[in-house]
Amino acid sequence: MNAINLAQKLTLFEDFWKPFIVAEVNDVQLKLVKLYGEFVWHHHENADELFMVIKGRLQIKFRDGDVWLNEGECLVIPRGVEHCTAAEEETHVLLMEPKNTLNTGNVQNERTVEAEWI
Amino acid sequence: MNAINLAQKLTLFEDFWKPFIVAEVNDVQLKLVKLYGEFVWHHHENADELFMVIKGRLQIKFRDGDVWLNEGECLVIPRGVEHCTAAEEETHVLLMEPKNTLNTGNVQNERTVEAEWI
Repeated sequence: MNAINLAQKLTLFEDFWKPFIVAEVNDVQLKLVKLYGEFVWHHHENADELFMVIKGRLQIKFRDGDVWLNEGECLVIPRGVEHCTAAEEETHVLLMEPKNTLNTGNVQNERTVEAEWI
Repeated sequence: MNAINLAQKLTLFEDFWKPFIVAEVNDVQLKLVKLYGEFVWHHHENADELFMVIKGRLQIKFRDGDVWLNEGECLVIPRGVEHCTAAEEETHVLLMEPKNTLNTGNVQNERTVEAEWI
């Protein structure tokens, strides 16, 4: 068993909006993702999703208002709730969600990517 | 939906070795715990457990060797694997494990405590 160093893992990729899997705990995966700009509106039918900001500032848009997360802050987005993430600066996020959760949820478009292990 | 600020949550308790629940994502809970000294050897029959160090340095003892975790480092302890945590200085940890996971796993003794929401 080896320690997983999040800062070191973040040096291994430069892609924006592509989640990289760093750990699996029970049926939940931890993924690192770098964000910049705006994503697409979507929801996850059967998966709650947790966002934890490691660096930068994350805007999570909901149909009835926005939540802003700074470093060291988390938010749980319950299954079924439509949301859209955005970042005005390069922002690094740790995601926690059931394995096989697709990044664009119920939407399939050019932003849809498979998460990869790093 | 409100942001969960881990640093602010850590100001809400002083207890050592008592996990406080800050979030639930699917069937997994995120718990904050402050550690100092040494815990008890135990395992969790059906639960993988993730430790993430927020502050300090965590020693996780296994029967065949130790792993040390510094700030920003994580380790997944697979179900069934016996372990014992220890910290030579005050150490703050974010735990990720299925809800209803008992802190002392298969052991019930004076160190066994119920996690509480904060």
